[in-house]
Amino acid sequence: MDASAAGLSRIGLAGLAVMGQNLALNIADKGFPISVYNRTTSKVDETLERAKQEGDLPLTGHYSPRDFVLSIQRPRSVVILVKAGSPVDQTISALSEYMESGDTIIDGGNEWYENTERRMREVADKGILYLGMGVSGGEEGARNGPSLMPGGSYQAYLNVEDIVKKVAAQVEDGPCVTYIGEGGSGNFVKMVHNGIEYGDMQLISEAYDVLKNVGGLSNSELADIFAEWNRGELESFLIEITADIFKVQDEHGNGELVDKILDKTGMKGTGKWTVQQAAELSVAAPTIAASLDCRYLSGLKEEREVAAAVLKEAGMNDVVGAAMPIVDKKRLIDDVRQALYASKICSYAQGMNLLRAKSVEQSWNLNFGELARIWKGGCIIRAVFLDRIKKAYQRNPQLASLIVDPDFAKEMVQRQAAWRRVVGLAIQAGISTPGMCASLAYFDTYRRARLPANLVQAQRDLFGAHTYERIDRPGAFHTEWTKLARQSKTGMGVLH
Amino acid sequence: MDASAAGLSRIGLAGLAVMGQNLALNIADKGFPISVYNRTTSKVDETLERAKQEGDLPLTGHYSPRDFVLSIQRPRSVVILVKAGSPVDQTISALSEYMESGDTIIDGGNEWYENTERRMREVADKGILYLGMGVSGGEEGARNGPSLMPGGSYQAYLNVEDIVKKVAAQVEDGPCVTYIGEGGSGNFVKMVHNGIEYGDMQLISEAYDVLKNVGGLSNSELADIFAEWNRGELESFLIEITADIFKVQDEHGNGELVDKILDKTGMKGTGKWTVQQAAELSVAAPTIAASLDCRYLSGLKEEREVAAAVLKEAGMNDVVGAAMPIVDKKRLIDDVRQALYASKICSYAQGMNLLRAKSVEQSWNLNFGELARIWKGGCIIRAVFLDRIKKAYQRNPQLASLIVDPDFAKEMVQRQAAWRRVVGLAIQAGISTPGMCASLAYFDTYRRARLPANLVQAQRDLFGAHTYERIDRPGAFHTEWTKLARQSKTGMGVLH
Repeated sequence: MDASAAGLSRIGLAGLAVMGQNLALNIADKGFPISVYNRTTSKVDETLERAKQEGDLPLTGHYSPRDFVLSIQRPRSVVILVKAGSPVDQTISALSEYMESGDTIIDGGNEWYENTERRMREVADKGILYLGMGVSGGEEGARNGPSLMPGGSYQAYLNVEDIVKKVAAQVEDGPCVTYIGEGGSGNFVKMVHNGIEYGDMQLISEAYDVLKNVGGLSNSELADIFAEWNRGELESFLIEITADIFKVQDEHGNGELVDKILDKTGMKGTGKWTVQQAAELSVAAPTIAASLDCRYLSGLKEEREVAAAVLKEAGMNDVVGAAMPIVDKKRLIDDVRQALYASKICSYAQGMNLLRAKSVEQSWNLNFGELARIWKGGCIIRAVFLDRIKKAYQRNPQLASLIVDPDFAKEMVQRQAAWRRVVGLAIQAGISTPGMCASLAYFDTYRRARLPANLVQAQRDLFGAHTYERIDRPGAFHTEWTKLARQSKTGMGVLH
Repeated sequence: MDASAAGLSRIGLAGLAVMGQNLALNIADKGFPISVYNRTTSKVDETLERAKQEGDLPLTGHYSPRDFVLSIQRPRSVVILVKAGSPVDQTISALSEYMESGDTIIDGGNEWYENTERRMREVADKGILYLGMGVSGGEEGARNGPSLMPGGSYQAYLNVEDIVKKVAAQVEDGPCVTYIGEGGSGNFVKMVHNGIEYGDMQLISEAYDVLKNVGGLSNSELADIFAEWNRGELESFLIEITADIFKVQDEHGNGELVDKILDKTGMKGTGKWTVQQAAELSVAAPTIAASLDCRYLSGLKEEREVAAAVLKEAGMNDVVGAAMPIVDKKRLIDDVRQALYASKICSYAQGMNLLRAKSVEQSWNLNFGELARIWKGGCIIRAVFLDRIKKAYQRNPQLASLIVDPDFAKEMVQRQAAWRRVVGLAIQAGISTPGMCASLAYFDTYRRARLPANLVQAQRDLFGAHTYERIDRPGAFHTEWTKLARQSKTGMGVLH
């Protein structure tokens, strides 16, 4: 069907790499006539061909910005799916020339939220509305139902609400889309989503590492374990695909493909931004930071090989093996499952608290329960577990941390013994579990009424006269520590 | 003595808070006639009075920018010690009006290095030279010998080299100052120094926490232990002052003052910048990041008290106490010493590698051995240990990491058993040791030739078609994981 013959399209999409093609086809598939455009015109033809093959979908191709824009009914909504940064500016510049007051631009890329806010101001001069819309779910999600995080102009959101609600993944409590908030909030929420995704992937890789190298599990056993975990509290897309990964055989030889993959992890910018924003907002996000660090360290493959050799030469036993503790395999598997779940709660607590801090700073008024809800389907971190987070924030929208939600608190308490056993065992065995360690340290720091930070304050007062507060009386105090210490009789014998 | 009567001053200093006063007096004390200026003129009188009292030092006070600048011999060198940010711009603006081509401005504050580079460009229009000079050592160091990190114009450095070499702390291999490099390198190196300082303080507070809450040590015993440690490999300013802190009695009651200090730690911006720069430069710096996170979490005192109560209600035993393992006190003390030392090596490795990454990015050509040398005296992180770092970089200026220096590698290997025992014990006891954990995880990640990052790459290829490399053949590969997994017979029984 040629939608333009029947009139103007309902919406447009520019940028026809795989994500863009798939999202356009998804929109058309839901019955919304769509115009598509790409600078390299072969991509337009490719998309037209797919639209035909995938069921004669109502999609029209256009070969110039002008034709493209004018083929859309007013007020126009145009989705852009190009590489973040200057390609977005170039595309906006090319299209906005033909757009009119009341029209909307929707950037669906992983853009830095301040770039979105700058563009929002720039196009406002022409009366053009703007949405920065996080799209999660990869290529498959884009085609069959992603999680969508649109932020910016509320009017612009209303203009496309009927479309995005149909296009998004559907879960039992609605479509995986909601209006996030003003400004660049949609991009920011997507950025933190990606940070959480980094954390999840890191924690799963640590579970794999411990089960394989401490528990001695084969890939076939790992496939079974992850499949089993995917029927319980850990049920999620990432656990499911991990089970699948262990099953794939290497076409070039014996054994499974996973063992042949180089242990260097690539990355894009969102994890880095998440960690930098956490520092900026004074929010501790150590599990997410650990996952980023591990990607960096994984990249130093050659250095790591040298380090392994140098330390062996320096007398290091192969900790794994030599000192390997004897473990009950069944119990280890159950312990690792619990450690993974508890670590995950802490990682999500960090991500949600980062969002809360930004929401306060920017007056975005984010609805954390709704965010958890729209992540339940479509996106990479989709998980049954997110429904529990949704409920925690519904019970208490002011929740200071997931850790102090009564249900999550109970789950943490039930799992802490297993969690401590796994991390302790890994440390003994020389298997690094930086994410699980970071989560546990976060938990043990956050849950302690009294920390040793008093000593740090004393040090700062001693060398920098930064003053300190007391637990028993108000005010700021400064002490001449060194003078008083030298006068004191305590420990006199050891002074030198 | 009135230096201006005898002619012009050799140098000037503007900004007479305690740090500024002390540095000015230090310069005068070394025989260099100095002019001082402060916008609030009472500070000028205060400094003049101190100069008189502390030995009739050659220091003249000035009450207007013009008089101040004109009292200095050409080419003029003017040190600024005001709050970082706009006060620096204001001071430069006020003073530069009377300065001439060939004169130098030296900013001694904790300034963001890019601000220094901007100012460098701005004053270059007038031919004015610029140094961003990190000054470490607090008030006491400023008066008696700080560690100085001047970066920027080499000519400007040469103009004051005779002064800074006398003013800086003196150690057996020279004064604690060296020309750092071009641009904002002096500020950047000082920033990382501060990040390392955060790490040291955090690790010491963890050692204190474990010894106190797992080992049951009293403050008096802690004072003795730290004093004893200060006679060995840990000998350093921070260990020394920690021993002192435990000796100070509370004037308001029984016991030691340290126990009455509120466990909320303040901070300035340099730790945060260090962590953000590490992320920016793809360098893992988890120990430094953990110390920053702990400062953030320490600030949430009220939340932590609530969390402790909620978790108790959720059934959490007081892990400390109930499940407390029985420990041999003497062995614990020795283990903690080793854990602290090994953790410290990893923290310094992170800091040095962050500097290396920045040096490459900016072509600063930093000399890491020299940096370690100038930190040996004057500054907060001064330690015997820094001489070992200096030697490691002298042995191999291209050292990839302190961990792979043969001497440090040996030290790590010797300490790893104790280190693992301490961290394992703390985890078991519910005492958070995020810094030690982060260092150990860093060590165990960096020294492993094979990490579980292969799984992360497989996941990324599955959901994002990011491709992967193989260990056994070149190229980038993509696999249809899900399709192949569903075809595979492995684990078929558990699919659902």
